[in-house]
Amino acid sequence: MKKYSVGVVGAMGAVGTEMLKTLEQRDFPIEKIKPLDIAENRGKKVTYKGEEVEVEVAEKGAFKDLDIALFSAGEGASQNLAPVAVSEGCIVIDNSNAFRMDPKVPLVIPEVNPEDVTWHNGIIANPNCSTIQMLVALKPIHDKYTIKRIVVSTYQAVSGSGLPGIMELEEQVKAYLEHKEIKPKVYPHQIAFNALPHIDTFLDNAYTKEEMKMVNETHKMFHNNDIKISPTAVRVPVIRCHSESINVETQKPIDAEDVRELLNHAPGVKVLDDISSNTYPLAAELTGTDEVYVGRIRKDFSVENGINMWVVADNLRKGAALNAVQIAETLIKYSII
Amino acid sequence: MKKYSVGVVGAMGAVGTEMLKTLEQRDFPIEKIKPLDIAENRGKKVTYKGEEVEVEVAEKGAFKDLDIALFSAGEGASQNLAPVAVSEGCIVIDNSNAFRMDPKVPLVIPEVNPEDVTWHNGIIANPNCSTIQMLVALKPIHDKYTIKRIVVSTYQAVSGSGLPGIMELEEQVKAYLEHKEIKPKVYPHQIAFNALPHIDTFLDNAYTKEEMKMVNETHKMFHNNDIKISPTAVRVPVIRCHSESINVETQKPIDAEDVRELLNHAPGVKVLDDISSNTYPLAAELTGTDEVYVGRIRKDFSVENGINMWVVADNLRKGAALNAVQIAETLIKYSII
Repeated sequence: MKKYSVGVVGAMGAVGTEMLKTLEQRDFPIEKIKPLDIAENRGKKVTYKGEEVEVEVAEKGAFKDLDIALFSAGEGASQNLAPVAVSEGCIVIDNSNAFRMDPKVPLVIPEVNPEDVTWHNGIIANPNCSTIQMLVALKPIHDKYTIKRIVVSTYQAVSGSGLPGIMELEEQVKAYLEHKEIKPKVYPHQIAFNALPHIDTFLDNAYTKEEMKMVNETHKMFHNNDIKISPTAVRVPVIRCHSESINVETQKPIDAEDVRELLNHAPGVKVLDDISSNTYPLAAELTGTDEVYVGRIRKDFSVENGINMWVVADNLRKGAALNAVQIAETLIKYSII
Repeated sequence: MKKYSVGVVGAMGAVGTEMLKTLEQRDFPIEKIKPLDIAENRGKKVTYKGEEVEVEVAEKGAFKDLDIALFSAGEGASQNLAPVAVSEGCIVIDNSNAFRMDPKVPLVIPEVNPEDVTWHNGIIANPNCSTIQMLVALKPIHDKYTIKRIVVSTYQAVSGSGLPGIMELEEQVKAYLEHKEIKPKVYPHQIAFNALPHIDTFLDNAYTKEEMKMVNETHKMFHNNDIKISPTAVRVPVIRCHSESINVETQKPIDAEDVRELLNHAPGVKVLDDISSNTYPLAAELTGTDEVYVGRIRKDFSVENGINMWVVADNLRKGAALNAVQIAETLIKYSII
């Protein structure tokens, strides 16, 4: 079996760490692993399959010996370095927002639109975490029932802001218990014991970038601009795993039991839905899992054809690192690398 | 001015405490205040306007000298004792779910349907907290634009489960920081750093009681069973104040700027909506406030006439104690007592 030299840009970050772990756990055919990060982290060590590997600097020249580079070092780093990596002969799988809506860049969830990897021009974008878990759950439903409209409200974990988000929540919770003042740094307001209806920046249409990602990325990956989507993105004091309350209206008659059966056999999905035993997906219990978990599947009595559901996934795994690694696996599957 | 003898049943609970505070703060015309609770709390003291008052036992005979009894001691206590209080000549304002859907009992939000107090038969029900804040915000919108459909997802605080809910969250957060095991007692699962799509018990239609309250109580108070409502009720690790992500579709064309203007002049509502300064209502900042706060008002591009909004209110104040006291004030206003 062919093996590949893989770089991870942002190797010391929350997603980068998870990318290394995911490559290892899935036994990705690695010839050489190359953790890359900012100059301040040069020489620091990460562990890959029991061996310490030194972090090198993500800069011009660093990509020459690589087949694939998984980027998760923020939009700026991707904008600057992804084209460099491509010019050095490397395929970039980019977790940032930099290229997602670029018409020359495929945006891919392997369970949703794997075939889009075939037309890449060096960069393949990894979608936004909230979009990934929503679409893994909705793809089989769309295929069978044709989705007309989605109304979604999210409950997003602080790890979406990386390690600083996690530290901020833990510090604020500690300050609260010690009756000390809470000073927000990462978020515009206190996140402990709060719900912030504000993720990423506000746009002219009064939606946030995070909300519009869910609209635009869905259209791009479903190859369908007719699906109507009304999103509200909210940060909640959860460490890891995003939850979503999703309301779906379909063209064809839809039934909760059929959806449960359909999703039971859908790739990347696990149904956790038994209200008689209080079983439904829970953020605090799903850290480190790979699937998109779906529960609370029930008929929406407010429209002719509709359902409500509760969808939870690990935002650092399927919402970021895992999906990126799965894109790399798809490149192998389609014999692109 | 006439003064009234007022009893508070469940005076030692989270809502009862807030009822006493609210009566005091609003300078309700009190002749005599009578805190009532279970036998275990007999003789304990509460403070009303600087004076200590002894808690008496909520039992037969305790209501003879009262004009009004505000009940917030759970559904069982209301079922058993509210009829007793009525038979002893007292008007009951009941915060539990016991009588809300009883066709002989008015269910009242003073900003929404104050006139319904007039046909009471001794008991007036105080609506569910999530319904109250939703309807205070939606009433002016419904009056002007005629609401067709509501899709709502809630972010509800643990104080909705009273003091035990608050203690459970604080204990679990502490256990988390100390790397100790978390053992849920009040909730079926861990509430710290989690989002539970489960409030109150599950019904045969796969919705929770909490969710169906939002449907049924809206129909009752709007005197309109045609409004379609699709609710998802979720408990989040917030101490106090419920937040709601509300999507509204209307018959008539609706505009975010008009809604902002309309709500700016609506009774009981405060608009907090300036995204240029990251201003929107936040649960952690609104403890102890009386109004229903509305922000993130924006056009819903997914339907012809629709808006999205973010609605926050103190679940123990407007969601419970304050609304109950305002019902009592409405009784005075309509010369019923």
